[in-house]
Amino acid sequence: MSVAGQQFETDLVELRNRVNARLADYMTTSTDCPEKLREAMSYSLLAGGKRLRPVLVLLACEACGGKLEEALPAACAVEMIHTYSLIHDDLPAMDDDDYRRGRLTNHKVFGEGMAILAGDALLTLAFEVLARDIQPAAVAAACCADLASAAGCCGMVGGQVADLEAEQQLEKQNQNSTDAHGSGSDPEQNRVHLAQLEAIHQRKTGRLLTSAVTMGARVAQASVDSIHRLQEFGKRVGLAFQIADDLLDVTGDAAKLGKKVGKDATLGKMTYPALLGIDASRKKADDLITEACRLIEPLGAGAHPLGELAKFVARRDH
Amino acid sequence: MSVAGQQFETDLVELRNRVNARLADYMTTSTDCPEKLREAMSYSLLAGGKRLRPVLVLLACEACGGKLEEALPAACAVEMIHTYSLIHDDLPAMDDDDYRRGRLTNHKVFGEGMAILAGDALLTLAFEVLARDIQPAAVAAACCADLASAAGCCGMVGGQVADLEAEQQLEKQNQNSTDAHGSGSDPEQNRVHLAQLEAIHQRKTGRLLTSAVTMGARVAQASVDSIHRLQEFGKRVGLAFQIADDLLDVTGDAAKLGKKVGKDATLGKMTYPALLGIDASRKKADDLITEACRLIEPLGAGAHPLGELAKFVARRDH
Repeated sequence: MSVAGQQFETDLVELRNRVNARLADYMTTSTDCPEKLREAMSYSLLAGGKRLRPVLVLLACEACGGKLEEALPAACAVEMIHTYSLIHDDLPAMDDDDYRRGRLTNHKVFGEGMAILAGDALLTLAFEVLARDIQPAAVAAACCADLASAAGCCGMVGGQVADLEAEQQLEKQNQNSTDAHGSGSDPEQNRVHLAQLEAIHQRKTGRLLTSAVTMGARVAQASVDSIHRLQEFGKRVGLAFQIADDLLDVTGDAAKLGKKVGKDATLGKMTYPALLGIDASRKKADDLITEACRLIEPLGAGAHPLGELAKFVARRDH
Repeated sequence: MSVAGQQFETDLVELRNRVNARLADYMTTSTDCPEKLREAMSYSLLAGGKRLRPVLVLLACEACGGKLEEALPAACAVEMIHTYSLIHDDLPAMDDDDYRRGRLTNHKVFGEGMAILAGDALLTLAFEVLARDIQPAAVAAACCADLASAAGCCGMVGGQVADLEAEQQLEKQNQNSTDAHGSGSDPEQNRVHLAQLEAIHQRKTGRLLTSAVTMGARVAQASVDSIHRLQEFGKRVGLAFQIADDLLDVTGDAAKLGKKVGKDATLGKMTYPALLGIDASRKKADDLITEACRLIEPLGAGAHPLGELAKFVARRDH
């Protein structure tokens, strides 16, 4: 790894530590929260993880000349939303997963009822933190609007529904044909599936990642042009992130990932490697990151760490 | 019924209609929402009901000299929160109810996964609507903070957890003793139970009702003193509302209520009638409403409809 690369990884650990410390603070300062609920919320919120979304908030803020410290509440808010979505997605009525990041899922430890409530509470706390701790109030309101729009029925939750529907549709098609999708067997159908996959991911993960960078920019009181650049940057990074995720399920190391690999293929899921092949998927991710970095170039040297993060996202091994 | 009372009921219908129309608008203008999700959200959000919380927002705004129209987004937001909480409470992992307001519960119609997501989406939409549609931004942020604090881990969700815990505790006590609670059998234990019950309801329903009136006041850009008065008003009305609810479970008409009665007693739940008796519960509710109305007297004639609503809440038959 290059010296610059090593420095970036050190900086990343430092940023994660700051986010983790603030998240822990938010858990302890909710003094009127019943102990069991706080335990369930903390179990998932303080479970570690890459903290990609919060770090995006912080580096986007810095890229626009803002103070990292002032963006911490927004960084924590987006992680709360991400965590709640994982808790609810893991529920038996949804993906029914027993493990997450190598540990038992929330409902396996606290029960389904408590897991639903812990998710609800984290979702709500995200907006409390934004509305109360971001200054000035106009920026707080804009951040609330960004995050809610990204996380709600037209964003992440909508993407989750669209994903469930696409899976059901695919199952039906697979029952009717043994070759409903695959690498290049029917170019036209592949093209349709690819567009569908992109639309789902754009909502399911892309919108939230994009809200992370726009919130960072808003805290820095960036210009409309900068916010727009970061929006386009976020879209591309979000998609590259998802492609990398799909690739890891094919080529990754289960121990590093803390979860099973090959699950997508077993489930016959639509993924980039399944539709494009591994090499073309890798290239697509790289191209998206190149474009993303070009988009934020006009922001100057302050945006370099954000570009580094984008590269890291597309090339990560866990 | 008095002429004034009749006029109030007519006004109430008019306010409900305005709320219902705006809620329907919010469902249709979420254009990028998957159809099935919109259907699940609308099924519960547009199911009617008393719309007590939104009407409290509107009348509190009017009581502080604000324009009703400007408070409509906050009125809708609090109803979205209330609706999401009902959808999640009804889930098999929580209260496991098949009927709500005389109709099948959300998960019975759309399945558990979709019901969880519909709840999540409504919870999120509440904050989107507030942050985007309330003006000026400082008021929007203050409303978001009020609502999130009232709905979250230290408010409604926390109350739900405390309620579940109290029920479990009571079950244990009932196993050890056949007379763990009841009307006046052990005054000291009754006192403890009453304090516990009040604390639970304050979080479970009181905080959200209180946020309804403070949001209304904020939209009207009311003074700190007026907001404080409305907070104290909200606390008392919230408690009276819960006592009335408990009384309806004993004395109510199942057809009017659209749900079974006598369920609390069957479940051996802590309720006001069980702890205080019916007459004392009725008196307590009336006293709370008298106090509440006295608190808002200094706001003048504009606050009369809000006082009327408080009386209606404590004396309602469904």
